[in-house]
Amino acid sequence: MHIDIISTVPDLLSSPLSHSIMQRAQDKGLLTVQVHDLRPYGLGKHNSVDDYQFGGGAGMVMRCEPLAALIDELRAQRTYDEIIYLTPDGERYAQRRANRLSLLGNLLLICGHYKGIDERIREEYVTLEISIGDYVLSGGELAAAVVVDSIGRLLPGVIGDETSALTDTFQDDLLAPPVYTRPAEWRGRAVPEILLSGNTAAIETWREARAEERTAARRPDLLPPDV
Amino acid sequence: MHIDIISTVPDLLSSPLSHSIMQRAQDKGLLTVQVHDLRPYGLGKHNSVDDYQFGGGAGMVMRCEPLAALIDELRAQRTYDEIIYLTPDGERYAQRRANRLSLLGNLLLICGHYKGIDERIREEYVTLEISIGDYVLSGGELAAAVVVDSIGRLLPGVIGDETSALTDTFQDDLLAPPVYTRPAEWRGRAVPEILLSGNTAAIETWREARAEERTAARRPDLLPPDV
Repeated sequence: MHIDIISTVPDLLSSPLSHSIMQRAQDKGLLTVQVHDLRPYGLGKHNSVDDYQFGGGAGMVMRCEPLAALIDELRAQRTYDEIIYLTPDGERYAQRRANRLSLLGNLLLICGHYKGIDERIREEYVTLEISIGDYVLSGGELAAAVVVDSIGRLLPGVIGDETSALTDTFQDDLLAPPVYTRPAEWRGRAVPEILLSGNTAAIETWREARAEERTAARRPDLLPPDV
Repeated sequence: MHIDIISTVPDLLSSPLSHSIMQRAQDKGLLTVQVHDLRPYGLGKHNSVDDYQFGGGAGMVMRCEPLAALIDELRAQRTYDEIIYLTPDGERYAQRRANRLSLLGNLLLICGHYKGIDERIREEYVTLEISIGDYVLSGGELAAAVVVDSIGRLLPGVIGDETSALTDTFQDDLLAPPVYTRPAEWRGRAVPEILLSGNTAAIETWREARAEERTAARRPDLLPPDV
């Protein structure tokens, strides 16, 4: 899989893309990520990439021409399965979308800043708009990092033990049950006895019950309506 | 405001915390962020911070002792308003929570990895559990960066024009209307005429209508039930 990212602060992404799982995915040749600086495509002697918004109001808007120039250049080199704009008014990102994206070949992510990008770039190029949550960030870069990370860890071969990802929260629309490790007692708090029993079937039943309980208490919206 | 972050890959956070708005907030002395490496608090000659989970199954669990040692050390130096664990089964993070957190003084964020942290650490220390969205990341670091960024930009004095943040998506439970900047026509696509009219009241009405329209189309869940 190859992912291109367009950003006005490309260096912001350097450390998230070069550590942990992202580093491993790239070292193994399973994922290549390239961050492209929009600034050189800016207009005038200041390489301006933004301007005041039509109609007035606070907050700058990213201009069409610099984005179009860079996108056109990248599209001349590669066919993208999706051109994704990270924006708080996009589709709310969830594990199902991460799963689907992880099956694709080439992605282009566009990071907005300020008030966002000119609407006409969205109309002209963007095939998918993603919001990582109902909050506002100072730019799309962290959202892009979240999308790359959530996809990257799903690529076959990236995580050591692949059955681990399948038991994650959200893969089955349930929150994960509580987890414990040694010591069996810590500061007077004991691990639930069932987990020490070695009775695999009983442990599985316990975990399912805890997962359903936790989901009902914290995120009833995830449960099917008839439960 | 001061934010401490506990992580097993502290370097992953270096570039997000030293660019753009986060850099500005720290340069202005409005925010200090310190990332603390959990590894030196690990056990044994390999400084182990995780272990197999009780009851079996794929995925490691972060042990109590290293986390407790570091948290105790930090708590000896500072009183935290919230000790926050970033986890996909936490409360779904949204702008309202960002607003509330931005009014506090000291926060401690704990980044999990693998299958998460031992449940007893959550019981013993954690006052708030936050999920930045319904998807799984390879660790809590990007979630912590998202929380710090979303809070940091709300601190008075961080963003140049403070009225900008108030018109962001989610501050009024509506998605933002489309935005445009020069040129007025680009590749045959014209900016809506009303935005060039100079009629501030009419522009405001148009923007509200577009914001409601877009919210109804994309995120009807944000609208009050009687609309």
